[in-house]
Amino acid sequence: MKRTSFPTAESIAKLLNGKVISGNKDIVIRNYATIDQAKSGDITFLANQKYLPLLKDTKASAILMAQAFKEAPLGITVILADNPDLAFSRVVEYLNPPQDNVYKGIHSKSSVAKGVKLAKGVSVGIFTVIEKGSVIGEKTIIYPSVYIGHSVKIGRNCLIYPNVVIREDTVLGDNVIIHSGTVIGSDGFGFTLETRPNAEGGREAKRMKLPQRGNVVIEDNVELGANCTVDRARFGSTIIRKNVKIDNLVHIAHNVEVGENTLIIAGAVIGGSAKIGKNVILAGHSGVDGHVTIGDNVKVGAKSGVVKDIPPDTMVAGFPARPYREHLKEQAILNKLPEILKNLKK
Amino acid sequence: MKRTSFPTAESIAKLLNGKVISGNKDIVIRNYATIDQAKSGDITFLANQKYLPLLKDTKASAILMAQAFKEAPLGITVILADNPDLAFSRVVEYLNPPQDNVYKGIHSKSSVAKGVKLAKGVSVGIFTVIEKGSVIGEKTIIYPSVYIGHSVKIGRNCLIYPNVVIREDTVLGDNVIIHSGTVIGSDGFGFTLETRPNAEGGREAKRMKLPQRGNVVIEDNVELGANCTVDRARFGSTIIRKNVKIDNLVHIAHNVEVGENTLIIAGAVIGGSAKIGKNVILAGHSGVDGHVTIGDNVKVGAKSGVVKDIPPDTMVAGFPARPYREHLKEQAILNKLPEILKNLKK
Amino acid sequence: MKRTSFPTAESIAKLLNGKVISGNKDIVIRNYATIDQAKSGDITFLANQKYLPLLKDTKASAILMAQAFKEAPLGITVILADNPDLAFSRVVEYLNPPQDNVYKGIHSKSSVAKGVKLAKGVSVGIFTVIEKGSVIGEKTIIYPSVYIGHSVKIGRNCLIYPNVVIREDTVLGDNVIIHSGTVIGSDGFGFTLETRPNAEGGREAKRMKLPQRGNVVIEDNVELGANCTVDRARFGSTIIRKNVKIDNLVHIAHNVEVGENTLIIAGAVIGGSAKIGKNVILAGHSGVDGHVTIGDNVKVGAKSGVVKDIPPDTMVAGFPARPYREHLKEQAILNKLPEILKNLKK
Repeated sequence: MKRTSFPTAESIAKLLNGKVISGNKDIVIRNYATIDQAKSGDITFLANQKYLPLLKDTKASAILMAQAFKEAPLGITVILADNPDLAFSRVVEYLNPPQDNVYKGIHSKSSVAKGVKLAKGVSVGIFTVIEKGSVIGEKTIIYPSVYIGHSVKIGRNCLIYPNVVIREDTVLGDNVIIHSGTVIGSDGFGFTLETRPNAEGGREAKRMKLPQRGNVVIEDNVELGANCTVDRARFGSTIIRKNVKIDNLVHIAHNVEVGENTLIIAGAVIGGSAKIGKNVILAGHSGVDGHVTIGDNVKVGAKSGVVKDIPPDTMVAGFPARPYREHLKEQAILNKLPEILKNLKK
Repeated sequence: MKRTSFPTAESIAKLLNGKVISGNKDIVIRNYATIDQAKSGDITFLANQKYLPLLKDTKASAILMAQAFKEAPLGITVILADNPDLAFSRVVEYLNPPQDNVYKGIHSKSSVAKGVKLAKGVSVGIFTVIEKGSVIGEKTIIYPSVYIGHSVKIGRNCLIYPNVVIREDTVLGDNVIIHSGTVIGSDGFGFTLETRPNAEGGREAKRMKLPQRGNVVIEDNVELGANCTVDRARFGSTIIRKNVKIDNLVHIAHNVEVGENTLIIAGAVIGGSAKIGKNVILAGHSGVDGHVTIGDNVKVGAKSGVVKDIPPDTMVAGFPARPYREHLKEQAILNKLPEILKNLKK
Repeated sequence: MKRTSFPTAESIAKLLNGKVISGNKDIVIRNYATIDQAKSGDITFLANQKYLPLLKDTKASAILMAQAFKEAPLGITVILADNPDLAFSRVVEYLNPPQDNVYKGIHSKSSVAKGVKLAKGVSVGIFTVIEKGSVIGEKTIIYPSVYIGHSVKIGRNCLIYPNVVIREDTVLGDNVIIHSGTVIGSDGFGFTLETRPNAEGGREAKRMKLPQRGNVVIEDNVELGANCTVDRARFGSTIIRKNVKIDNLVHIAHNVEVGENTLIIAGAVIGGSAKIGKNVILAGHSGVDGHVTIGDNVKVGAKSGVVKDIPPDTMVAGFPARPYREHLKEQAILNKLPEILKNLKK
């Protein structure tokens, strides 16, 4: 719902603990847009230097930046703010307050088992199922068509989007966000070959399913994207520590532990029993072998494959993943190789 | 539902604007099959030259081809048709007309909010939810167990398969097909570090979610496979232009734009704010970095990773993706390297 | 539900057809844990030699192993068992028998079409849809919020987890397990360009959808992980043979055939009409091009891409996938190249 009365650049600066450093502090801001799409009356922002070339042609009336750039158009009103990315989001929320569309209360056509504990302010949407023994914390919102298995514990202020599946015994902390289509607590991929006598008097190996009897524990402030999978542990727990943020289509296998503040980008796959440290970044399409340990503050490049332990505070890339500088050196030589070999022939 | 009366080769040729060029034009065709599985009475086709070696042994009574091949078995009836792939599909539809299994009308156990506008001929399946403010165009079929959020606009003749999630404010054109499990409009993966005073009098960086307030726009004739994810824009729109075809398990991040007629194959991942041109092919498991621009008519090889802008009309491969010829040259040298080094030692 | 009376090491050994070879055979076992988390009174196991270094510090009272290791702590009770992995799972089931949480019977708020055949002992959960003409075998459990299309056949003792979609005409054998979010029978990704006269009197190519009229056949004892996709055949069947085990987020395209006992690890993608042999392993994030044949007993390394036929009994890696030894040799040379070139310059 857009506002009907509008703020000045000066009042936006105040809202952000920022400062108008040039242009007209009394100009009225009616809307917001990206730097290339902004029109007169709009506010925009510059956070990524990649977009600096667009600055001189922006039609915006005001701009949020972390520092003054000489490329800014004449007459534009410049507001300095520490973190223009975040500051701009606040302006957006101010100019266009989010609508509260969530169904309030427990929908009569949801299916909440007897004995399930729903704290104050919980919302449960239509066609959502909550099985016996589960406990849902205050103000948690469970959208329609969610499935929550037996004995699940969910904390406060969580958001569980439509079509999420949370299987039995999963534990979620507070402020956890799970996007649509994500499956938590599916069986780990565990099989073993058992050799047995066969009908012909010999022996044959049969692949047997190893029961997956553990669970998944997700701590506070974790966000999981859409269509991810987090398998339950064989025994014990698959653990995602607090403040971890996970993109879409990411797979976390049984018994994995992901450390605090770690980021995992779309398409990454983590094998069983791997241990990922704190503040790690796993880039898009990266993979981590089972039973591998990655130290704190490690960065794993896009499409890399980690097949052995990585010490903390390193950056790795390639497959098999090796220190980033080695990887770059190899890439550089590979690029020059045709020329080098031509020279050698001479 | 299979037919009970059957056409001749000649009448099939007429149906296809094709021509019987050898064999018996009056032979009756009772069924269809692939070239290796066809039996007497069947029609088959040859579209991919890879299957030419199978031609001489086929047991089919008739075959659709774009040209005459001398390998065709003696006596087989050959029908020439411009596009044997498409022509064969028409024969299949003719011999085995598709059944119309769709529930007609608005199911009494669906949940359509008051004020939702359903045009003539719309079908809404059981357990499907359509939230307030949404508009659905003529003859669009929404299968059971779909979730459609607030203020979604869907055009005419769309097919939305079971368990699709379409979140608030999404816009779909006409003739759009969305396969099961796909999630449209989930939050973009956007976070920023904010430095704040901490309890010990120092400062600490905290990762803050950037609100994702934009939407997703999907134009006419787009098909999206199963279990894909298309994130909403942070502001503005994530856009998929008309005639784009997307395979399964593909991820499209926030603020991406995909140009007309582009094909994206299974397992591909596109990072935030990337711009993909028209008529592009992104092969399986390829990846595109955020904020990168790919020109029109570009082909990106399987498993490649695009990390910088790619000019139009080029073919790239490898990681980082480079021109295809360079990539091939490097691969060739890499293959020969063991021998080259052996010779050098001598 | 944990037990209230507890077995001795000796009685556990009997249960497993194993043998206590050292320590106290009368010690009472109250619980189970992994080797590093076990406490006094617990039983643990050693199956993967990677964890041998943890053995000397374990606090467990008893341990299952396949052979005696001198690193075992003094006084620990050692039980020998052929397959400690499987043996330990049996102990877990014994100490902590699985709870039977499944809803029994046909839920009154499911939607089972008239004429659907449900054998004895079938369970159908709330909000599950089964369309006309489907047949479900004895004791198969269909969890809540599943969608089963028209004319689907499902065998005995299957487990279909919440939010699975099984589209029309799919055939499942006995003892099949399908995890949440998986989609079976979505349309294959098939399009063809058709050239037509356009309005300006010239001709233009239009991409046409090729109807996907085949189905999916999944044989006995197959397990499919969460959020996988298996596309229906264009004609004929996409086939997954018996005992195949598939991890999460795997894509199987139209007309693929996967041979008996094959394992496919998370994130793998298989292109249309590929034929995968028996006892194959496709490691994580591997890819197989369309129309390619992979022989029996082949191992495809993680992140590899198979682009041409692979003979049986081989191991391949890299992209394009080549014999593993060649791949290793190339990797080794690549690693040494910087030094080799330095020496050459001298």
